[in-house]
Amino acid sequence: MRAARYYGKEDIRVEQVSEPTVQPGQIKIAPSFVGICGTDLHEYLGGPNFCPVKAHGVTGETIPITLGHEFSGVVKDIGEGVEGFTVGQPCAIQPTIFCGKCPACTVGARNICHNGGFIGLSGGGGGLSEAVCVNATHVFPLPNGVSLDTGALVEPLAVAWHAVSAAPEITQDSTVLVIGGGPIGLAAILCLRGKGVKSIIVSEVAAARQRFAKEFGASNIINPVKDDVNKAVSELTGGKGVDVAFDCAGVPASVKSACENVRTKGTVVNVAIWEKEVPFNPNWITWKESSYKSVLGYGPEDFKAVIENLGNGSIVPQNMITAKIKLDNLVRDGIGALISDKDNHVKILVDMEASKTA
Amino acid sequence: MRAARYYGKEDIRVEQVSEPTVQPGQIKIAPSFVGICGTDLHEYLGGPNFCPVKAHGVTGETIPITLGHEFSGVVKDIGEGVEGFTVGQPCAIQPTIFCGKCPACTVGARNICHNGGFIGLSGGGGGLSEAVCVNATHVFPLPNGVSLDTGALVEPLAVAWHAVSAAPEITQDSTVLVIGGGPIGLAAILCLRGKGVKSIIVSEVAAARQRFAKEFGASNIINPVKDDVNKAVSELTGGKGVDVAFDCAGVPASVKSACENVRTKGTVVNVAIWEKEVPFNPNWITWKESSYKSVLGYGPEDFKAVIENLGNGSIVPQNMITAKIKLDNLVRDGIGALISDKDNHVKILVDMEASKTA
Repeated sequence: MRAARYYGKEDIRVEQVSEPTVQPGQIKIAPSFVGICGTDLHEYLGGPNFCPVKAHGVTGETIPITLGHEFSGVVKDIGEGVEGFTVGQPCAIQPTIFCGKCPACTVGARNICHNGGFIGLSGGGGGLSEAVCVNATHVFPLPNGVSLDTGALVEPLAVAWHAVSAAPEITQDSTVLVIGGGPIGLAAILCLRGKGVKSIIVSEVAAARQRFAKEFGASNIINPVKDDVNKAVSELTGGKGVDVAFDCAGVPASVKSACENVRTKGTVVNVAIWEKEVPFNPNWITWKESSYKSVLGYGPEDFKAVIENLGNGSIVPQNMITAKIKLDNLVRDGIGALISDKDNHVKILVDMEASKTA
Repeated sequence: MRAARYYGKEDIRVEQVSEPTVQPGQIKIAPSFVGICGTDLHEYLGGPNFCPVKAHGVTGETIPITLGHEFSGVVKDIGEGVEGFTVGQPCAIQPTIFCGKCPACTVGARNICHNGGFIGLSGGGGGLSEAVCVNATHVFPLPNGVSLDTGALVEPLAVAWHAVSAAPEITQDSTVLVIGGGPIGLAAILCLRGKGVKSIIVSEVAAARQRFAKEFGASNIINPVKDDVNKAVSELTGGKGVDVAFDCAGVPASVKSACENVRTKGTVVNVAIWEKEVPFNPNWITWKESSYKSVLGYGPEDFKAVIENLGNGSIVPQNMITAKIKLDNLVRDGIGALISDKDNHVKILVDMEASKTA
């Protein structure tokens, strides 16, 4: 079968590999749509960072590995002992793998397993192939009305849902600030709308991303280069600040902006991954006794919640898909487009069905 | 009457001022013991920082103001409309003043009132005088068995109690890390012991402060200059990290140490006030989904809890008092000693009764 495999920096090859055989407890998935993620981009441009160069703690594999961790597909084969699935069933795949033994796993936080990884980044196959065998616990059936291309958006939406859920005090009447209108910031807007939040202020520089933010449900857009964000937030909140600020930008200015604009006793949620230390003054939150939380990944509960909200129409993410491409054009039309024209793209999907006839 | 008044940097004068008259709703207190605080020291060395140079938002006063915000005393006179107090009653005074109108006050967080201040720093008189009139809501009677010198420790203990209460997940079986064995770090140890916590790891450089920490109830002492704190904490917690880390040091190394040594889903509580930005990498807590909270001051609930715990013997703070001095010697024996010999002092009290015969 064909698969897109990561060999190292700027070296992704679409090549023939042998098709895996389903094992007991597993389901064989024929991937349908596969999203390209910022992590894929970073691996291509400057990796291997995340992809294993020595035996991965859970999969035992090293590069080359098959890419594709945001994906939907249909059940192709069902392993021994697996019940409740039928061949042909459309599904979304939760790609996180975990060791079950580390301090995080032992407190039930498998999403931050210290030895963990992702199907499609850490070995164990990936979505960018004609077939992948995963444990049945990774497979989440899509309800009627949720299309397979939407199914490939469950993973990035689960990241945002997990982040939004880190501030359980949010109600429909909350005012929130989302800093950064990239894919995760936009997914956060969709999830907040899914929770009924009406007042969503978005701080974003790029005009294209501002348009996406507005379209996805932002109530107010601030351009942090042109506008005084603190003044604008103060005016929009009657001087109080926002209830919750989400840092989906991950730049030095965003951590300060999030801390300065959150209200007394409010919460900052960091959803970004950082490359190095940044300037931080604890006084920013001390005078208000605000909290700073940081989140990573998602759990099965987030996957379930996103799929439920897609099914009942609370989250409408179709406009996240800005292009569908073929597997053979992964580097040029996928990764290349995200590099050269990132502001005009939210999510580029590889259409695996269409790729068969490439 | 005599009072110690702050005029500016290195200018504190013990001088005659007119004795205040009790107003309706007020109680006149004859101060008994008055603690000297790090804030007093900072005002003396580099102020005015906190003391008002323009009309204070609540008191309307400017320097010179009477010092002394950590104090006990006895009721000397009772204003119209005040009930439940008797002349001669021993009390601790909660010095925080607030505006009642700002975003903090309107959400009930008067301890962080944006216009707030302290009796003894912001006007309204202070403990370092023969009499001070305060609203009855500031006056907390001391139960039998709690001496007046102990009563002067209620304020710094309330700071620590408030900080410890910011991590309500702490149980008697928790393991905590206290970084910094200064007065607030030591008060935190006493409060943690008051809550029954047995495993209290303290990171402190100074030998004298290490001795105090041990004496006050620390279970383990780490010297961050000589020892590898991360390794030591890892060994003491079976590789898990501490449940809660309190940063009572407020230096760049302490924020990193607190974040690195807290467990998965644990909480860092910042109790320090900072002078400037410090390096911070959100990843320190992201990989563990830990939280970073910051606290300031205390509320009446903290004053009540401390007094209750002093009354029932859960908190035994007598050894915090390392010297008692007379008002006339405030600068030399109080502030001077804290500057020249700070590691050997926890709390220096001015004995106002003894000062009368100076």
